[in-house]
Amino acid sequence: MDAMSLIESTLTTAMLRAETGGGPPKLAAAMRHAVFPRGARVRPRLCLAVASACGADRFDAAVAAGAALEFLHCASLVHDDLPCFDDAATRRGRPSVHAAFGAPIAVLAGDALIVLAFQTLALGCAVQPGPVIALSGIVAEAVGMPGGIVAGQAWESEDEVDLARYQRAKTSALFAAAAMAGAASAGEDPLPWRALGDNLGDAYQIADDLCDAAGDAASCGKPVGRDAALHRPSAVRRFGIEGALDLLDEVAERAASSIPDCPGVASLRALIVQEAKRLVPKGLARAAA
Amino acid sequence: MDAMSLIESTLTTAMLRAETGGGPPKLAAAMRHAVFPRGARVRPRLCLAVASACGADRFDAAVAAGAALEFLHCASLVHDDLPCFDDAATRRGRPSVHAAFGAPIAVLAGDALIVLAFQTLALGCAVQPGPVIALSGIVAEAVGMPGGIVAGQAWESEDEVDLARYQRAKTSALFAAAAMAGAASAGEDPLPWRALGDNLGDAYQIADDLCDAAGDAASCGKPVGRDAALHRPSAVRRFGIEGALDLLDEVAERAASSIPDCPGVASLRALIVQEAKRLVPKGLARAAA
Repeated sequence: MDAMSLIESTLTTAMLRAETGGGPPKLAAAMRHAVFPRGARVRPRLCLAVASACGADRFDAAVAAGAALEFLHCASLVHDDLPCFDDAATRRGRPSVHAAFGAPIAVLAGDALIVLAFQTLALGCAVQPGPVIALSGIVAEAVGMPGGIVAGQAWESEDEVDLARYQRAKTSALFAAAAMAGAASAGEDPLPWRALGDNLGDAYQIADDLCDAAGDAASCGKPVGRDAALHRPSAVRRFGIEGALDLLDEVAERAASSIPDCPGVASLRALIVQEAKRLVPKGLARAAA
Repeated sequence: MDAMSLIESTLTTAMLRAETGGGPPKLAAAMRHAVFPRGARVRPRLCLAVASACGADRFDAAVAAGAALEFLHCASLVHDDLPCFDDAATRRGRPSVHAAFGAPIAVLAGDALIVLAFQTLALGCAVQPGPVIALSGIVAEAVGMPGGIVAGQAWESEDEVDLARYQRAKTSALFAAAAMAGAASAGEDPLPWRALGDNLGDAYQIADDLCDAAGDAASCGKPVGRDAALHRPSAVRRFGIEGALDLLDEVAERAASSIPDCPGVASLRALIVQEAKRLVPKGLARAAA
């Protein structure tokens, strides 16, 4: 089974477990709405790619950690879209969860997806329990306080915000966790892999800022122009479109060169370069790129 | 160290980890507000009491699981109090988290506490890793879909609600998990312990319904009369005050007699009977009780 099929199958199985057993139907439908149909599944793919590059001989723990990170990513989108935050009516080109199911069910869907993430991680590690505690720590750190995505979102409620810290928490944290979890699941020291994840997260954040500032709602799958409207920190607001494009090139290059030495370093580097090219919003791609 | 000190010390250490490292200050303050000063810590005490009754020779995993359940309980209170649910301005006699910090930070504080729960469980099990996967499963089941507290809250958004299923999910699930986690942490089969937790949870829910219907805001520490105002299912609305008091007696008796055979069955039974007496709201206590 290829990586993408393995990831979808794990997410689907976990979701079925949540849906089975007579729980409240609206919450079940809202959770499914948040996770399917599939997004790019970038974080779990990164996790598996790193595990593979590290020479892992089994992938149960890596798949479980990757699926957990994807559920947590989806949960954060559901909560970020709430009326008290971004108040976004659409996401991935469809109604956001709160637009489709109401704010109460959207709050609970996010909560239930956070729980499902940690449940999926633990149950998936039942057949490969060695790294479960390290992986739980890595995943929790990426989401909670002081530097995870929830902390990142909370910086929007503070009067003074450090842009680097904010973006690192809000976006890079999950990428760093994906890279580190891939290494930890293969029995390698996760710490040297943080830089790759951080850099990739930075690249995705800059691409997201570009999409918000210069993309269109259809190709971005969500309303655009929100950063300026909500006075949110953004690389485009700070450096302009051209400056942000330069920064994206620079950060992608930094990501590719930050891969620690490992059996699969060459193919992982090629994958990173290929992914980075996909990030530039259509219409902004440079001739040189 | 006695059980209560051990629990407080574990909660405090976990909270300090969340607060340290330069995270957003408002979120940190909101999380602390939700967890301290201490409540009765009923669920972690139950978890430790069961582990002790099972003859556990170490308590690291039981304390970790108990602390996780307490964080999850606190998280559920923060989210339940949100304007889109109960819209409660006070909790434990103080401003609720959203009243003190605003709804956005309250949503995030709940999220961060859910994450902190699973993080505390995993890290606490680092020195006693044997039961970590079983405990993660038990804890997740108590909170998520289909039968955990988040599912319980979501039943309030459904048109048709089964009272027993609703209350079991909303209240009993965490008690059942506390009892089962205590047993699992001692290396015992957790399943026979579910009934004790379920019955205790039922007792607490009935006591809570009585408090809401016939207590006063000062002794309940939160606004009363909300079940009727919000048309929520409640034992008092269904059976009346006297009927609910009878039911509480019956359920407490059932709890005490549902303790599985174990080395410490007698002292655990005495503890349960003593706790049950504390549950009847002041002014409703019967001469016979």
